Amino acid sequence: MFFASDNWAGAHSTINERLLKESTRFAAAYGTSELDKSIELRFNELFEREVSVYFVATGTAANSLSLASVAKPGGVTFCHSEAHVIEDECGAPDFFSGMRMIPVEGPHGKMDPENLVERIARYPQDAVHHGRAAAVTLTQATEVGTVYSLEEIDAVSKIARENGLPLHMDGARFANALVALGATPAEMTWKRGVDILSFGGTKNGCWCAEAIVFFDPALAKDFAFLRKRSAQLFSKSRFIAAQFEAYLQDGLWLKLAAHANAMADRLRAGLDRSNSARQAWKTTSNEIFVVVKKDAAQAAEAKGAKFYDWLEPRDMPEPVGKDEMLVRLVTSFATTEEDVDQFVALATGR
Amino acid sequence: MFFASDNWAGAHSTINERLLKESTRFAAAYGTSELDKSIELRFNELFEREVSVYFVATGTAANSLSLASVAKPGGVTFCHSEAHVIEDECGAPDFFSGMRMIPVEGPHGKMDPENLVERIARYPQDAVHHGRAAAVTLTQATEVGTVYSLEEIDAVSKIARENGLPLHMDGARFANALVALGATPAEMTWKRGVDILSFGGTKNGCWCAEAIVFFDPALAKDFAFLRKRSAQLFSKSRFIAAQFEAYLQDGLWLKLAAHANAMADRLRAGLDRSNSARQAWKTTSNEIFVVVKKDAAQAAEAKGAKFYDWLEPRDMPEPVGKDEMLVRLVTSFATTEEDVDQFVALATGR
Amino acid sequence: MFFASDNWAGAHSTINERLLKESTRFAAAYGTSELDKSIELRFNELFEREVSVYFVATGTAANSLSLASVAKPGGVTFCHSEAHVIEDECGAPDFFSGMRMIPVEGPHGKMDPENLVERIARYPQDAVHHGRAAAVTLTQATEVGTVYSLEEIDAVSKIARENGLPLHMDGARFANALVALGATPAEMTWKRGVDILSFGGTKNGCWCAEAIVFFDPALAKDFAFLRKRSAQLFSKSRFIAAQFEAYLQDGLWLKLAAHANAMADRLRAGLDRSNSARQAWKTTSNEIFVVVKKDAAQAAEAKGAKFYDWLEPRDMPEPVGKDEMLVRLVTSFATTEEDVDQFVALATGR
Amino acid sequence: MFFASDNWAGAHSTINERLLKESTRFAAAYGTSELDKSIELRFNELFEREVSVYFVATGTAANSLSLASVAKPGGVTFCHSEAHVIEDECGAPDFFSGMRMIPVEGPHGKMDPENLVERIARYPQDAVHHGRAAAVTLTQATEVGTVYSLEEIDAVSKIARENGLPLHMDGARFANALVALGATPAEMTWKRGVDILSFGGTKNGCWCAEAIVFFDPALAKDFAFLRKRSAQLFSKSRFIAAQFEAYLQDGLWLKLAAHANAMADRLRAGLDRSNSARQAWKTTSNEIFVVVKKDAAQAAEAKGAKFYDWLEPRDMPEPVGKDEMLVRLVTSFATTEEDVDQFVALATGR
Repeated sequence: MFFASDNWAGAHSTINERLLKESTRFAAAYGTSELDKSIELRFNELFEREVSVYFVATGTAANSLSLASVAKPGGVTFCHSEAHVIEDECGAPDFFSGMRMIPVEGPHGKMDPENLVERIARYPQDAVHHGRAAAVTLTQATEVGTVYSLEEIDAVSKIARENGLPLHMDGARFANALVALGATPAEMTWKRGVDILSFGGTKNGCWCAEAIVFFDPALAKDFAFLRKRSAQLFSKSRFIAAQFEAYLQDGLWLKLAAHANAMADRLRAGLDRSNSARQAWKTTSNEIFVVVKKDAAQAAEAKGAKFYDWLEPRDMPEPVGKDEMLVRLVTSFATTEEDVDQFVALATGR
Repeated sequence: MFFASDNWAGAHSTINERLLKESTRFAAAYGTSELDKSIELRFNELFEREVSVYFVATGTAANSLSLASVAKPGGVTFCHSEAHVIEDECGAPDFFSGMRMIPVEGPHGKMDPENLVERIARYPQDAVHHGRAAAVTLTQATEVGTVYSLEEIDAVSKIARENGLPLHMDGARFANALVALGATPAEMTWKRGVDILSFGGTKNGCWCAEAIVFFDPALAKDFAFLRKRSAQLFSKSRFIAAQFEAYLQDGLWLKLAAHANAMADRLRAGLDRSNSARQAWKTTSNEIFVVVKKDAAQAAEAKGAKFYDWLEPRDMPEPVGKDEMLVRLVTSFATTEEDVDQFVALATGR
Repeated sequence: MFFASDNWAGAHSTINERLLKESTRFAAAYGTSELDKSIELRFNELFEREVSVYFVATGTAANSLSLASVAKPGGVTFCHSEAHVIEDECGAPDFFSGMRMIPVEGPHGKMDPENLVERIARYPQDAVHHGRAAAVTLTQATEVGTVYSLEEIDAVSKIARENGLPLHMDGARFANALVALGATPAEMTWKRGVDILSFGGTKNGCWCAEAIVFFDPALAKDFAFLRKRSAQLFSKSRFIAAQFEAYLQDGLWLKLAAHANAMADRLRAGLDRSNSARQAWKTTSNEIFVVVKKDAAQAAEAKGAKFYDWLEPRDMPEPVGKDEMLVRLVTSFATTEEDVDQFVALATGR
Repeated sequence: MFFASDNWAGAHSTINERLLKESTRFAAAYGTSELDKSIELRFNELFEREVSVYFVATGTAANSLSLASVAKPGGVTFCHSEAHVIEDECGAPDFFSGMRMIPVEGPHGKMDPENLVERIARYPQDAVHHGRAAAVTLTQATEVGTVYSLEEIDAVSKIARENGLPLHMDGARFANALVALGATPAEMTWKRGVDILSFGGTKNGCWCAEAIVFFDPALAKDFAFLRKRSAQLFSKSRFIAAQFEAYLQDGLWLKLAAHANAMADRLRAGLDRSNSARQAWKTTSNEIFVVVKKDAAQAAEAKGAKFYDWLEPRDMPEPVGKDEMLVRLVTSFATTEEDVDQFVALATGR
């Protein structure tokens, strides 16, 4: 019953097999092998256009270097107030990009377009003292289990474009969002106006596979240097490439995400059937936020369930009661139906 | 016949097996798992004292963050003029530490103690305009195949200590040096006065396993933040831990390094028997630098041999002739006797 | 009628005379002259204890380098949400210190202690992902004309101390606050727990004189390097020293601030007598914020009055009407009674 | 007898008078006043083309931000091995630009073109590991009293242009070089291919007046932000503008530099007439390097002469004898004939 995070899961067997095969070969280092190059082509196919792809070690690196690639002196980046870049990366995006992250409020992890417009307006292009707007970043799926619809991405993208700002998408859970929307990778990104994507594989069955995808290769002209200077160029880079090869082969990545989402659906359904637990807000990806009775939660923990307490946000429709607590549950490619059912039984006291 | 670099090799089967086993489990993320913690204890044992250990993604990260951990404003770091930190890391050490790398000359990859003394003296602790001495770093084994003897490390260490400077060791090929010297890890590091070590596993049979070892845990007090802020904290950190577990188990790492060194010995012996090739300078680890006839080198390449041309250094005892070239050959855990013998035959024209 | 800012004023004649005298001499450069050293002693006297003093070029530099001197990796600094460091310095504090500025709300430019406690609690010392509390900074006088009472500084200081955080004071208008409170420099700073002070002279009669005062000289041990590395060490530093000498001689600085504050009092009194203008909130230093009729404001501007419109804050007790506007008026050592009276007449339509 | 440095001199009376006049006025802050703008036009005239001009606080800032304005990730800047940017600015150019300074040897403070070509060739545009060439900077007049001829600037400029590298000139002693060459500002800069100039006034009669001049205003598009973010935007910027106004009026700056150079000529002539002192190498600006008898130097010091000992460079045509020492003498606008003659008498033991 591991619901603490999708990064508590291991790695998928297909990916492991590909890694095993890779380990017996010699090949050129630092991203120059044939395999590395073939994966770049694979991403072109995946996104239905020419893209530039760079592997990095962590999601934090993907976000930080994406923003660094479009940084300007005195620039600021707009993100949701609960975004990973502002809350959970220890200032790495600010460090690498030299930009400040400006929080934009909005319900349940999504920037409210009006708030975004208002915030950007405070940082005009001649605001030498205050700082100037330089980028927008959104997280898809969001940090709180929700997913921007294509129309909602359009709304953010339109604002970015009208203000001449590049748009970055933090796709640490890109596959989960894609499956939830039933969209293609192209539809959810550059066709919506996304310029740069942090494409995460680690949370969805790889053990370490993060890529930055530039939809306009011109944006990436300095990136090879930025990556090396940031200590993010793997010598045995092809082991990242190998993971991505297996991950993308025959739609494995979508199957894994579909499984994780289905397990979350099962959790949602199970908890909704109960009177003693309720979803704090509606989610559609592989994260759910549930208000449960404290004693039921403790019982689940006693049986080995792993999950995190969550700070009650200001915009909870129905407040958490005295004998209740808010918890976050995350499913993954490795979550089983048995685990879900056992947890539901314990959490709902049945 | 892959002699281009030891990072062209894959990963050792024992390490792969350990990774496979790890991949089927759930465990806590971001370096907090039991496995992560057990490896820290394993390093204590290995080094015969309490140490602090932090995994990072690349050797460049290990070096850069090691230096960042002891950085001072206006500080400079002394390194050999051919050191990886000054020649091959795209300025990452400068970027992360805010320090400048000051080259110190010395024969065949090793800082000459007199030169080091003279260089340090130019950066006294009150040199506000010029900058002040803040750290010394040496590479063991060096970038050109040589190995500092314990006495030579002592000499550098004494100078560092007399000037109040922390001493860092870049151990990207730590195991190869250890085997070459027949020393223990403790003897080659803190017993010699080394304060911080970049402990590399990637070149010697892991696919990605780099650690920073602080021999004085007090030096590491801010390091968890420094690493996260530098985008170097893996979510599935335990996959690094797992590699190190297998790597260190039953002396595997030393066996792999001993094999690589033995293959280099075989190369050295084979080439020395020839009149048409000669070692450019004496090396004792898994890198050798050879002057070969151009046509022999081309013949070897035509048969699939991989190696790099090398820039002729200023201090070559015997210059490279017109029909000759200088090449670098690197062996690894995966090098075979057959490959060595075949290469020797081709390179010596026999 | 120059009320746009106190930095629109020129320089006081006594300070000019001292500069003239200085200009005819030769003296050692880079802050090593006798005069530079004597000013350091003068600050000891002024603050009734041994302090370390460093001149820098701008108030932004004073704040940024103060914070840089206590920075930690992953650290964050708490400041009022309208503080100069977060609103008006183009990210310089973040750039030099590597820290993020975390806004703390509070009425009229002063951090609310409860909010400060709550904010600090979100950044505990082991919050590797989120970041950790590292410093607190308050502005005295504040950016909106108010002044922290000694008790209010105590309240902030107590919180900082309890959390082990150094406390910085942005004293761009230090003298105006001192005069408003009738306190001594010691009473308003280190006796309250302030560790580092940006001591501003530029807005109060100098043309360029900013100093960083460390109340614990141990905090300043690296500062000479930090300043030089930050391009803030003047070669003819003694011209800053000379300004400070004249500024501090015979209490000139307090007389100039008292004049500026008195002119603000005269403005306050004049506007309060009117029905057509009102103070937006109560201020006690040399800045006042007034709601005036738009046509009266325009009439004043037409006659050459200079002032800035001000964005209506969320916590205005009485909102700005449709035919009204909120303006900021700043007085200085150079403001005359005539200018005040003329402005009052115009702004109140009399 | 102040020959320690030209920054030991005070400020010229004409400049003081202009400052006095400025101090009695109110005017807009942060570089937006009419005076600030008029000086920009004055620079256009001076350089016979449209330029962008930005004032900063120090020569170190001028150099550091000039290089920052053309920085690239992984970029390196080529400078003479004794250049101020690499020897005397505590790493500020590296800090602000994120680039490393690569030393280029050459006799007497001037980069040897062949060495420059050879060095640049080591940093090609695809050298991800090593770093890539990004800028060239030369100092005019050099740090050791020599002056690049127009042809010599052409030679450096041609190399920069052929490699696509912007060319910066550190003109801390720009006027002294100009006078020495008898050239116009345009002839010594953009007509030679210089892209960015650190235009120094401080050493030549101002007390603080440094400007960055962009000959292609497009290069300056981000500079206003870069300057503010670097804490280099003066609030009372017009006091810098006022200094430059007086400095440039009626050729004052050239007269002051001509005087300084003439005093150096007088020193050169006086010392050359002696058998007991000799110029270490030929200089043509306001710095001279002299080998004197130790006892004569001590006698001069005893009489109050100020000068610096100088480290003997490797390329001294005639080595310094046992009873001799090498000293640097710098003249300025404030040096008198009497001081020169007295010094010559003492130093030559007559």
